[in-house]
Amino acid sequence: MKIPVLEIFGPTVQGEGMVAGQKTMFVRTGGCDYSCSWCDSAFTWDGSQKAEALSAESVLERLDDTGGDRYNHVTISGGNPALHKGIGELVELLTDRGIQTAVETQGSYWQDWLLSIDDVTISPKPPSSTMVTNFEQLDLFVERLSSRSEGSQSLKVVIFNDGDLAYAKQVHQRYPHMPFYLQVGNDDLHENQPEKLRDHLLHRYEWLVDTVMEDRELNNVRVLPQIHALIWGNKQGV
Amino acid sequence: MKIPVLEIFGPTVQGEGMVAGQKTMFVRTGGCDYSCSWCDSAFTWDGSQKAEALSAESVLERLDDTGGDRYNHVTISGGNPALHKGIGELVELLTDRGIQTAVETQGSYWQDWLLSIDDVTISPKPPSSTMVTNFEQLDLFVERLSSRSEGSQSLKVVIFNDGDLAYAKQVHQRYPHMPFYLQVGNDDLHENQPEKLRDHLLHRYEWLVDTVMEDRELNNVRVLPQIHALIWGNKQGV
Repeated sequence: MKIPVLEIFGPTVQGEGMVAGQKTMFVRTGGCDYSCSWCDSAFTWDGSQKAEALSAESVLERLDDTGGDRYNHVTISGGNPALHKGIGELVELLTDRGIQTAVETQGSYWQDWLLSIDDVTISPKPPSSTMVTNFEQLDLFVERLSSRSEGSQSLKVVIFNDGDLAYAKQVHQRYPHMPFYLQVGNDDLHENQPEKLRDHLLHRYEWLVDTVMEDRELNNVRVLPQIHALIWGNKQGV
Repeated sequence: MKIPVLEIFGPTVQGEGMVAGQKTMFVRTGGCDYSCSWCDSAFTWDGSQKAEALSAESVLERLDDTGGDRYNHVTISGGNPALHKGIGELVELLTDRGIQTAVETQGSYWQDWLLSIDDVTISPKPPSSTMVTNFEQLDLFVERLSSRSEGSQSLKVVIFNDGDLAYAKQVHQRYPHMPFYLQVGNDDLHENQPEKLRDHLLHRYEWLVDTVMEDRELNNVRVLPQIHALIWGNKQGV
């Protein structure tokens, strides 16, 4: 079963979420059941870039070609990687080699291979995305992951405005035992000067931090910026 | 038994290490057995600011006065907080209230209360600090923490130059099973414009990222900047 792959790059640092800072390779798959208004990887689903159908073995070969012996961790991202059953074989190959794995998905599709991923980030999308969360589906997704004995998982919500924050609270209260991350959204995907974007994003991050610090319903949370955007701006493939 | 306290502030975000982004209160204790050349909290040991001797109950009162009902996590930092036996009582009071705790210490002194801390960051100091690590002492420290059944711990080394990175590798190889963080050092403690410091620190962070990405002996690591320094610069008490 082939995997539609849009890019393989690294090693670089994971810029966000529960394994922020981790040295990792990225495998970015094409295709998404969502089309978030502010998606920073819209090229995975808007037809502007074409995915290549690769076998799990070929993906591993490409990882080795690109990362050599300088990696021990692979992040599978998208698009929504949970659309692709074929990733199961890749996860098996990686695990057999002792390589750690991480995945980010919005939790709208389930795959059994998710149970074998070391770190799963579930990132339901807030109202500003224009997407609507199916909470019954998400309940099941969270439950399946939470009941496994190995591996860890967290929720991450991207925040652009107060409405998103209200949504985030709802998610946090629904799954109070799940580690919870808030991430400031990048609302300027066209800025091509990293220094300008950096000042803007840190200003937005400061707003999010201030707001969360004042809120008694958001005490057990982690608030993070996208580190890669602070360094490299909107550049693809880093 | 009193605790010498220099500042209590928050809630704010934890800017570094294994719980980066966490909403937390800070209790900063005075006194250190080290005097690192680049210490960003030298006021805890250089005599420029005076600590106040407080009982554990008083510390908790001050936390409540400052953080109200807007906190569920307390970070005890220094100086070297592990110099103070009295912190044990504070940890007990916090744990009884269901409040999570984190500590950072260089690992030069042991206290049994460390076993009750949720997240312990052990931060041995690299050569640029001018301090010398007693590795036999550190072995024992790491072993005691690793053998506990609850709570988590990690190593964090601050990096200013290639010599520091060589030291970090030595530490990482000595304790391969301990989660390992590299943090870019702040070498400009006098810059008072956050925007200028931010550009400089991110430039240094990019250097560290590039260097680590090329190094096959540093595959299982996390590389992070100090997020608080990116936002607030060298300001104290945030």
